[in-house]
Amino acid sequence: MADWQRTHTCGELRETHLGQTVTLNGWVLITRNFPNQVFVDLRDRYGLTQVVIEDGDKALFAEANQLGREYVLSVTGVVRKRIAGKERADIPTGQVELEAKAVRVLNACPPLPFSVTEFPDEEPANEDLRLQYRYLDLRRRSIQQVLMLRHRVCKIIRDYMDTNGFLEMETPLLGKSTPEGARDYLVPSRVFNGEFFALPQSPQLYKQLLMISGYDKYFQLARCLRDEDLRADRQPEFTQLDVEMSFVERDDVLTLMEGLAADLLKQCLGVTLALPLPRLSYQDAMLRYGSDKPDNRFGMEIIDIGDVAGESEFKVFKDVLAAGGVVRGLNAKNAAAKFSNSDLKPGGKLSAFVTQFKAKGLAWMKCEAGKLTGSIEKFFPDAVKAKLIEKMQVENGDVLLFVADKESVACDALGALRSHLGSELKLYKNWWDEKAEYDATEEKAAKKEKRAPNPFVVKPEHFKMLWVLDFPMFAFDDEERRWVAIHHPFTAPMDEDVANLESNPGAVRAKAYDMVLNGYEVGGGSIRIHRQDVQAQVFKMLGMPLEDAQARFGFLLDALQSGAPPHGGIALGLDRWCMILAGTTNIRDVIAFPKNQKARDLMTGAPAVVEPRQLKELGVELKK
Amino acid sequence: MADWQRTHTCGELRETHLGQTVTLNGWVLITRNFPNQVFVDLRDRYGLTQVVIEDGDKALFAEANQLGREYVLSVTGVVRKRIAGKERADIPTGQVELEAKAVRVLNACPPLPFSVTEFPDEEPANEDLRLQYRYLDLRRRSIQQVLMLRHRVCKIIRDYMDTNGFLEMETPLLGKSTPEGARDYLVPSRVFNGEFFALPQSPQLYKQLLMISGYDKYFQLARCLRDEDLRADRQPEFTQLDVEMSFVERDDVLTLMEGLAADLLKQCLGVTLALPLPRLSYQDAMLRYGSDKPDNRFGMEIIDIGDVAGESEFKVFKDVLAAGGVVRGLNAKNAAAKFSNSDLKPGGKLSAFVTQFKAKGLAWMKCEAGKLTGSIEKFFPDAVKAKLIEKMQVENGDVLLFVADKESVACDALGALRSHLGSELKLYKNWWDEKAEYDATEEKAAKKEKRAPNPFVVKPEHFKMLWVLDFPMFAFDDEERRWVAIHHPFTAPMDEDVANLESNPGAVRAKAYDMVLNGYEVGGGSIRIHRQDVQAQVFKMLGMPLEDAQARFGFLLDALQSGAPPHGGIALGLDRWCMILAGTTNIRDVIAFPKNQKARDLMTGAPAVVEPRQLKELGVELKK
Repeated sequence: MADWQRTHTCGELRETHLGQTVTLNGWVLITRNFPNQVFVDLRDRYGLTQVVIEDGDKALFAEANQLGREYVLSVTGVVRKRIAGKERADIPTGQVELEAKAVRVLNACPPLPFSVTEFPDEEPANEDLRLQYRYLDLRRRSIQQVLMLRHRVCKIIRDYMDTNGFLEMETPLLGKSTPEGARDYLVPSRVFNGEFFALPQSPQLYKQLLMISGYDKYFQLARCLRDEDLRADRQPEFTQLDVEMSFVERDDVLTLMEGLAADLLKQCLGVTLALPLPRLSYQDAMLRYGSDKPDNRFGMEIIDIGDVAGESEFKVFKDVLAAGGVVRGLNAKNAAAKFSNSDLKPGGKLSAFVTQFKAKGLAWMKCEAGKLTGSIEKFFPDAVKAKLIEKMQVENGDVLLFVADKESVACDALGALRSHLGSELKLYKNWWDEKAEYDATEEKAAKKEKRAPNPFVVKPEHFKMLWVLDFPMFAFDDEERRWVAIHHPFTAPMDEDVANLESNPGAVRAKAYDMVLNGYEVGGGSIRIHRQDVQAQVFKMLGMPLEDAQARFGFLLDALQSGAPPHGGIALGLDRWCMILAGTTNIRDVIAFPKNQKARDLMTGAPAVVEPRQLKELGVELKK
Repeated sequence: MADWQRTHTCGELRETHLGQTVTLNGWVLITRNFPNQVFVDLRDRYGLTQVVIEDGDKALFAEANQLGREYVLSVTGVVRKRIAGKERADIPTGQVELEAKAVRVLNACPPLPFSVTEFPDEEPANEDLRLQYRYLDLRRRSIQQVLMLRHRVCKIIRDYMDTNGFLEMETPLLGKSTPEGARDYLVPSRVFNGEFFALPQSPQLYKQLLMISGYDKYFQLARCLRDEDLRADRQPEFTQLDVEMSFVERDDVLTLMEGLAADLLKQCLGVTLALPLPRLSYQDAMLRYGSDKPDNRFGMEIIDIGDVAGESEFKVFKDVLAAGGVVRGLNAKNAAAKFSNSDLKPGGKLSAFVTQFKAKGLAWMKCEAGKLTGSIEKFFPDAVKAKLIEKMQVENGDVLLFVADKESVACDALGALRSHLGSELKLYKNWWDEKAEYDATEEKAAKKEKRAPNPFVVKPEHFKMLWVLDFPMFAFDDEERRWVAIHHPFTAPMDEDVANLESNPGAVRAKAYDMVLNGYEVGGGSIRIHRQDVQAQVFKMLGMPLEDAQARFGFLLDALQSGAPPHGGIALGLDRWCMILAGTTNIRDVIAFPKNQKARDLMTGAPAVVEPRQLKELGVELKK
């Protein structure tokens, strides 16, 4: 070991090390310069240690006064107790300090474009600047903790899958294009001149082939790519836990995966998830929550009041019902004081909110001083009012909101409105928001009382999970005038619905399932088609006659009749899971080198212009 | 659980299950049809169970007679003992069989293009056919075992790295081109019109940035891509264990990685590797083995006989020495009977062998009946002969082979000749060849004695590993008339050689190291440059003045002066390690979906022609 190399990390020294001569390596977080002493907070991935340079050694002291933030140092010294009253309770090394005997500058550092210290009084730097200098941004303690968490999440997943007998298997990056609904990234092939590989949107077909090959239980933390525009929660490259199993039915997959979800929440956040998770049919989810990924951290379910509305004298409701539509509503408990009549009336902010989702309008009532009020109240005779009050469990202070429209519009509008009100009325809290509030108070209190802050405890009610099941197999695409697959074309129809495939495709349900956490889809999968005839029939339904299907998916159709076992699987979005476990809503916080269209200077930001020679070798040219 | 679903796997049943009613799911390996019984060997990933269908139930028996190879079945039945004398000692389920009460065909299978049973009397199918129907080829037991091993190898690696405090971190697939010496795969960017991403040849620069960001210990099982032609041991996509550590020197990396190598050999093959591994300088490796990846399973080291040759009267030797060249030789012990004089003379097979490596010729002697013979013997006076015999430890039956040439040619030619002779003279055995011989004998013996075969024991001498160190930093490229980096441009020069960077680049040694196993490079890495001035100087040496370097690697140069710690790392070829641990020399045996230019029909084989619309969106067009 070279004499400059560390004997301990910056998070390691305790009172048990008092009097020992040790060497630390790390970065200068901050220096505090006094006439006879220089204090340096030396930092590495493992923690922070206070180094003190006394003025006894004049050369050393002079050098210490030259040190700046983010200098890389090797410090050899003796561990001693901090002077009384200067101990820090908030860090594990807070009882001791290192009295420097030798300081080596391993690398200097000029002033940086932004601070990486994350002191509470600092404004965070602009995100584009942080992404441009990502290697500096990645030094922030908070992002280091997230990326360490991401490592642990992957380890927990792999250990769980291994313990359950799954084999991690790699599938190719360069392959054929398969239909996943998004745009492929293409790679021109030098060998197959004029042809392109596609980068995988998922390993879907490879994992099905692995089942057909008898690998029985497969998984992969798989890199997938979709050439889509950037969003706060979407990157063109993403990672998914990709799983496939043979000889299973739906419940085998659900049981396995909810066990993993419980493991992740337990090991990362200490939360115990009650299993089995609730299961909701797609139909019920749409009816009660207006969404196939309901956030059930709060109630305020959608209520169908078609029967009551039919007894009213309100023409709008009656016309919609007569045309086969629905009348549904929400009871926003205790929200009367929150929303003025002008918020509610046509053109008001709630009304404007639902029209974004194609609803023609928002009808409403309030319950004040024991009676219903509002513009449509007059169309409801007392007996009908009583039924409404009963059905929607109306109390003083409640606001009732109604959408009358065709079912899909009513679901969308009320589902979105429910989410919006859940947030506006603070019907739930994200655990990280609650933690931030707690931490602010607790840190102050702990500092005052000279004790370590008590950590925030995440509670089971912060995580509401469920399965959504029995999705429809097809949706009719009005633009393309054809049926499209809601999951993907390899999803199996329910056995009892196979007979309806051609006669009534809209009624066919799929053996598909989504895992939903706090209103986010955190996993989705299906039992797959394992019979060649059914697969061919589904391709046909999707506008792909056998000849076309054979050209594009011949290998799959062949494989399905070469001894394909029943099989199914699921994919979990790793980035999304890391966001939830780390407590962030920005996907760029959980990816070491995210894409950002503005940060073109860093190698991760933008592609490079290639040399004409390279294009020539590939047989492609750029259009003018 | 559905009634067709398995209660046990095909590898699970033992005598403890006798009398139990169980359900198995699996594939028909083979059927044996008798007048009153049908025997089915039912197979899954876990093993093989004999199913017997008696003719008591006529419908069932008739159905059983329709079953073919690779049908997928669910069989419910009762576990019973096999009849005496029909037990199989070679499989764990060999004492029992399943008396079928119900058989469900989950999927049928027509006759396949080739057999997947791997019976000893079957010719293996042609590799192209096997790759075309890869999903069938992957059913072979031998390849399933390799891919299960690959999963274990990855698990062992990840557990080892995690235990040692390393974080697995993902780096982008879409990035800028960086110089790794091979051709990049390029991906046209729709957003950055006219620009291309490059797929990574390695995560080299990202992992250095992670060190600069303070992550301290990073690893990744990283997918890398190089647009090179296929070979038996090379695929365009490959996986490497990619490692980087901060605040380390060379020996820290070596110690860590040889510990991992020992873990892999121990856990996968039961072999104990003696640590620390031997370390050899590049110079010594070239001198003694003529190779920077010496196979030291056998001796027959190269001997420099320059001093002896200088005392001879052989003009060829003396001229070469006078011109600054070398005279070196091998002693092929006991090989006199193996090589006739015509093998040795100019144009003979050994002579022809060395001329492939640019050697002008091969001089030789034999030692027969106590004296040296051969065409050049006459130029060696007795006293010189005595020195030669002493130096090369010559005994009766030995063949001495000499190359006189400039040093690099002599090294190459004798190094290749040494490897060639090592194989020809059977001076070592690959463990899998020895295993195959053992298995053939042992299986016969075990069958005869009705016992389970004793497994082959891999021995420590099957694995000879070493480190090669102190590589030169630069090589002069005669074609390009400039210095090129032997490792990569980010490799640090030895501290004591930094001063020579510009004045004598050929003498500068790099802090680079290669891990060598049985003559294969199984890992390579270096301590990196962590000082911006040194990096700029190295770029300049490689023909990249600061301005160019700034344009291509500005982010790296900036990062190096923003608090970069000393750091270094290594990459281990996962595919190569799997080949060695699995005992195969074909890389396509260790990759589930390898590339093969001929197998164009399978999705893995060749890229697809894309639609003109897709090209238009990307702003590229194909050249005519």
